Amino acid sequence: MEYRRLGKTGLQLSVLSFGSWVTFHKQIDDKLVDNLMGIAYDNGINFFDNAEVYALGQSELMMGRILKKKNWDRTSYTVSSKAYFGWRGKENKPNQTGLSRKHLTEACHEALQRLQVDYLDLYFCHRPDKNTPIEEVVFTMNTLIQQGKILYWGTSEWSAQEIMEAHMVAREYRLIGPAMEQPEYNMFNREKVEREFSQIYKTVGLGTTIWSPLASGLLTGKYNNGIPEGSRLGLEGFDWLKDKTYVSDKIEKVKQLTAVAEKLGTTTATLSIAWCVKNPNVTTAILGATKESQLTENLKALDVLPLLNDEIMQEIEGIMQTAPVFPQY
Amino acid sequence: MEYRRLGKTGLQLSVLSFGSWVTFHKQIDDKLVDNLMGIAYDNGINFFDNAEVYALGQSELMMGRILKKKNWDRTSYTVSSKAYFGWRGKENKPNQTGLSRKHLTEACHEALQRLQVDYLDLYFCHRPDKNTPIEEVVFTMNTLIQQGKILYWGTSEWSAQEIMEAHMVAREYRLIGPAMEQPEYNMFNREKVEREFSQIYKTVGLGTTIWSPLASGLLTGKYNNGIPEGSRLGLEGFDWLKDKTYVSDKIEKVKQLTAVAEKLGTTTATLSIAWCVKNPNVTTAILGATKESQLTENLKALDVLPLLNDEIMQEIEGIMQTAPVFPQY
Amino acid sequence: MEYRRLGKTGLQLSVLSFGSWVTFHKQIDDKLVDNLMGIAYDNGINFFDNAEVYALGQSELMMGRILKKKNWDRTSYTVSSKAYFGWRGKENKPNQTGLSRKHLTEACHEALQRLQVDYLDLYFCHRPDKNTPIEEVVFTMNTLIQQGKILYWGTSEWSAQEIMEAHMVAREYRLIGPAMEQPEYNMFNREKVEREFSQIYKTVGLGTTIWSPLASGLLTGKYNNGIPEGSRLGLEGFDWLKDKTYVSDKIEKVKQLTAVAEKLGTTTATLSIAWCVKNPNVTTAILGATKESQLTENLKALDVLPLLNDEIMQEIEGIMQTAPVFPQY
Amino acid sequence: MEYRRLGKTGLQLSVLSFGSWVTFHKQIDDKLVDNLMGIAYDNGINFFDNAEVYALGQSELMMGRILKKKNWDRTSYTVSSKAYFGWRGKENKPNQTGLSRKHLTEACHEALQRLQVDYLDLYFCHRPDKNTPIEEVVFTMNTLIQQGKILYWGTSEWSAQEIMEAHMVAREYRLIGPAMEQPEYNMFNREKVEREFSQIYKTVGLGTTIWSPLASGLLTGKYNNGIPEGSRLGLEGFDWLKDKTYVSDKIEKVKQLTAVAEKLGTTTATLSIAWCVKNPNVTTAILGATKESQLTENLKALDVLPLLNDEIMQEIEGIMQTAPVFPQY
Repeated sequence: MEYRRLGKTGLQLSVLSFGSWVTFHKQIDDKLVDNLMGIAYDNGINFFDNAEVYALGQSELMMGRILKKKNWDRTSYTVSSKAYFGWRGKENKPNQTGLSRKHLTEACHEALQRLQVDYLDLYFCHRPDKNTPIEEVVFTMNTLIQQGKILYWGTSEWSAQEIMEAHMVAREYRLIGPAMEQPEYNMFNREKVEREFSQIYKTVGLGTTIWSPLASGLLTGKYNNGIPEGSRLGLEGFDWLKDKTYVSDKIEKVKQLTAVAEKLGTTTATLSIAWCVKNPNVTTAILGATKESQLTENLKALDVLPLLNDEIMQEIEGIMQTAPVFPQY
Repeated sequence: MEYRRLGKTGLQLSVLSFGSWVTFHKQIDDKLVDNLMGIAYDNGINFFDNAEVYALGQSELMMGRILKKKNWDRTSYTVSSKAYFGWRGKENKPNQTGLSRKHLTEACHEALQRLQVDYLDLYFCHRPDKNTPIEEVVFTMNTLIQQGKILYWGTSEWSAQEIMEAHMVAREYRLIGPAMEQPEYNMFNREKVEREFSQIYKTVGLGTTIWSPLASGLLTGKYNNGIPEGSRLGLEGFDWLKDKTYVSDKIEKVKQLTAVAEKLGTTTATLSIAWCVKNPNVTTAILGATKESQLTENLKALDVLPLLNDEIMQEIEGIMQTAPVFPQY
Repeated sequence: MEYRRLGKTGLQLSVLSFGSWVTFHKQIDDKLVDNLMGIAYDNGINFFDNAEVYALGQSELMMGRILKKKNWDRTSYTVSSKAYFGWRGKENKPNQTGLSRKHLTEACHEALQRLQVDYLDLYFCHRPDKNTPIEEVVFTMNTLIQQGKILYWGTSEWSAQEIMEAHMVAREYRLIGPAMEQPEYNMFNREKVEREFSQIYKTVGLGTTIWSPLASGLLTGKYNNGIPEGSRLGLEGFDWLKDKTYVSDKIEKVKQLTAVAEKLGTTTATLSIAWCVKNPNVTTAILGATKESQLTENLKALDVLPLLNDEIMQEIEGIMQTAPVFPQY
Repeated sequence: MEYRRLGKTGLQLSVLSFGSWVTFHKQIDDKLVDNLMGIAYDNGINFFDNAEVYALGQSELMMGRILKKKNWDRTSYTVSSKAYFGWRGKENKPNQTGLSRKHLTEACHEALQRLQVDYLDLYFCHRPDKNTPIEEVVFTMNTLIQQGKILYWGTSEWSAQEIMEAHMVAREYRLIGPAMEQPEYNMFNREKVEREFSQIYKTVGLGTTIWSPLASGLLTGKYNNGIPEGSRLGLEGFDWLKDKTYVSDKIEKVKQLTAVAEKLGTTTATLSIAWCVKNPNVTTAILGATKESQLTENLKALDVLPLLNDEIMQEIEGIMQTAPVFPQY
């Protein structure tokens, strides 16, 4: 396994990590998760990503049970949570969502209980919250660090402007600013990671824990012939993914990508994951595998990574044509 | 004339202002400029925009001569310059361009001499400069304010991230941050002003002095039947404008827009300018008229502004379909 | 016993202190350590130095057992730990070494458990870590102080530049900077303590807890006739000490030093220790005795100290010729 | 000519620059300096280095006369001065030397008058001054920048500790810290530039304007057969250089270096200069040529620079064996 520093921090994360986004609860049970996390850990993965909203709290509860059972040395791995959406679903009352000091603090306490750990290594603002001043967010996160409840804090799906505002507040008040951002990143969605954040890696040393490296499964090639029942895109509640990704010209590109993968002796999915971590500004790519065979296959991205030379990268670029455009001066 | 505060500052600018971008030197002479500036001033315009690079210094020299001749009360108007490109053209040596303390300082001195004024009201970084730390820029601008050589400083064509980094540095070192940005803004180019900067108006109180309200003339409707010789797009050195803007579907939209303008009893150009200043986050729209009749026509935008009710705005939106898309959470 | 303020802090340390570097675990048992620590404490030593890496955690476990058994008033002594190398030896995983917030925090928790104390009086960064920003280190140490887990923090084998960078960050963010440094210091190794740090004692009030006052035993004179089996230099794993110190001209100097010691009616070791604490910038010299007789002998350095007048010091300088050279302006 | 950013600043200096250290006044006259500076400027050199003490003020007076006569665009070059030693020689009274606010301010005013310029681009503390708090130095330099009398300030022959203390003060009080250091650097003297400062280039972005790239002429090879009369080493007042450099084993190394130079088709001096600027942490190497032929020859270092591949660098290292030793952890 390769490890990378989380931005400018001293923390090292495995370049591939394990996330439970929508995977837990609805689709799988404890036994399977036990196996999946075991495979991940044994292969050197040291970051397990979670959030209060994933499966409305059930995801953290399940991961907490497994972590307790595994009894791994607490210093050998890192675990995260994210606050914003709440976990009570439609029952959320005022202050049970958002980024107010009340919710950030209470959500942290609840995540610690569900995950059965004394502190979170990473704690994310799951989205920006226009109803809470960023000043309040930064102060609260800094307080949680001072209290020893979290070690590093970050954001997810924030804009460059919002991340910089958090750092502006941190510098002004001498607090600890956000260390990382969790953006979507894959061959189809490169704007934020490659263009919008391009200066932030240097100026404030942002790390990234990217999600959806397979574009909701599109980059596995499994939707090339339509959406099979039982797949994630076919599940209830993901109509927006369906609308967003099921575009014929995307499928066409994936087909061409598959040819490249075959030439390299790998799968489209593995190639797509390797492509993500080829970007040095990606600290770690979060895998969302729900089958042991998938996870084992995904981990082979580390073997594919060295094969991605300039020629192959240009070939992929020629197919995808998704590189962001920069201003010309 | 309507006046608006420049962001959160106490300075008030006329909502329409007069710029000399490419208009001076090559196309027009002192006599014409004398008339144009007189019309502008007499109609309540109090902001005259300039830059070291406009006509390689000749634009500021000419404006300086007219200002001296007019002998208006110095407190009755504001004048700007911008540094970055230098004004020696291809003869620029190291440190004669960019945003180093040396160039920002020397360019300020030179602009003061060319414009024959004791201080600039507004001083802009004409572009971002990746080879100079933003910290050096903020310190230098603050020093120029301390020395009384400029009153407010700002940026032009900076990203939201860069503007926020400047404010981060300013807050950290207790310096005066940028008060305004000069972005391109018109019906065809709305991304920066409407989406990317949307939070900055509130968080740090950004003002905007927008340029190209007519999209290099495209929104006057005069290119509907091709590019006539002698027009700005036909001038030497503007091939990039030609490539960029001469798109048939844009022309098609302008034609539809013309129908709206006629319905309102005005011209396409006047409607387009009024549309820009309808946006309350626009402090002032810089006019680049090179004929007296043009300028007089442009000024009628103030009369059109009250006509832009919700219905008309939606009709325009239906034609242009250029409103930025925001994230959905 | 003489006590000195730890740099500019209000904490007073005995000028001689007791360290467990390599002494515990491999060579000695609980019974002996019980006696050694008893002698030290009864003679007024109030600083017991330790580190996570010493005997891979066993050193702290043993000292913890003795401290619990002795049941001395917690306010009557000070105890330290140091983080950086980890204690799992070759089994160290990412984040189980270095100076990241995660390791510094977790190493502190673990040291508190091993030593069976509620707080460390002194907590050291055992080495500099180029992969963690010093900013992160200072913030973390300050947080541990805020949490009551440590009282003072410092460094070991950091350069003057690195110590000053820590103070730069501390001043910038209004945090508590490092109070002390633990460098090697003895008659053969004077560069850091006497030249490199010379300004820091004044500027930021650095204290020093020096190690190896006997140059790994070389200054006891016991290697004058070669390395006997069972001595520290003869032990497994210290070949580097052997290479580093077993130099014939050093032995020659030690022989001449022995004559001085005899003239003063003391031993070479005792003289060498006294010479270290003659330097007022040395807060305390850490003794590493592993026999009761050694420790008792070492403690006589306090009686030798008053004998070190200018004449004797010059005689020693004449023999050693190791005084650092300063720039001449 | 190649240009490099002065550390992290936005200022660009030519990688070779022109200094007047001991060259002016004693040895040469206006006519010669006129020619030398003309050659330098025409070859793209944009940094002219000076100091109050050089030829006790005569050096700056002479350079001032030439700059006035040349009438080059002030924005096309940079000029420096340095304060510390005073220029009245043995007649210096209290406050006519050192780094007090009084002397730094008065020395700046005097240098501006001698050089006949409105501001210095670079202003150096010529040495550290233990009798003036660094806080006073930083405040004074910051004030001179605010007053527009200097643009960037730096140090010469300061230790890493002292430079960091200046930055500590700057961060604490939100002032502008030192941007550059002027150390001695050549194949024989590498400790400071390569080891002591190694972290500072990254942490605070230090630039370096190195002096004595030829080790007082030793690296020209001209002393291989003894010190000829009329050479710099033979001049009155340079006995310390004589003692310092006239070491037979150094001469031996220079002889071997000459063979390398001949293999590359260049001279020992030119190779030695190219070697200095091969180091990317060197912003500019100051040339001290006193003959037109020398200067022209020195400028050829830019042609030699691309020839210094890994193989050649290792061959030189094998001859010189002067690479600094770093701590091993």
